[in-house]
Amino acid sequence: MFVCTNRREPGNPKGCCAEKGADEVRDAFKQLLHERKLKGRIRANAAGCLDQCARGVTVVVYPEQVWYGGVTAADVSEIVDSHLVGGVPVDRLRIR
Amino acid sequence: MFVCTNRREPGNPKGCCAEKGADEVRDAFKQLLHERKLKGRIRANAAGCLDQCARGVTVVVYPEQVWYGGVTAADVSEIVDSHLVGGVPVDRLRIR
Repeated sequence: MFVCTNRREPGNPKGCCAEKGADEVRDAFKQLLHERKLKGRIRANAAGCLDQCARGVTVVVYPEQVWYGGVTAADVSEIVDSHLVGGVPVDRLRIR
Repeated sequence: MFVCTNRREPGNPKGCCAEKGADEVRDAFKQLLHERKLKGRIRANAAGCLDQCARGVTVVVYPEQVWYGGVTAADVSEIVDSHLVGGVPVDRLRIR
């Protein structure tokens, strides 16, 4: 899985995932994947701009190609438990 | 597709894709995807460490999950034309 951690210069009208908490989201995924003993099977990788800037922190899970927008650290446990462990993507956060 | 552009501090024993030409590889993909009119359909995205550091510049193509190692700018046109356009991955560069 990839978490956009792109940072643009302050004041850029597009904004960027970094200033919307991308590092906290990625850290939360890494921490929880570790706790769930999924380290080595699933990797929370940093990514450059995923071109969905308006939606807030963007996450994409491969190989199933599920995109999430506006993800916050508070959403991470639901994505891990429902989707990554349980196989059921979290509908309310999906970008289609 | 994701190109590892991770940079570690100079002298780190693992090395890193950045010092092996990752930016040149990514720029070559972006340029050629543009020339082939694939911009908008295929994106050459930067990624943090893909955990294949020993293999040189690492590239992964999703959703088909094809991994390439030791990619140089000279390999880019073959990957684009054979794999991304033609659907046939470039065997000699694959990580299995």
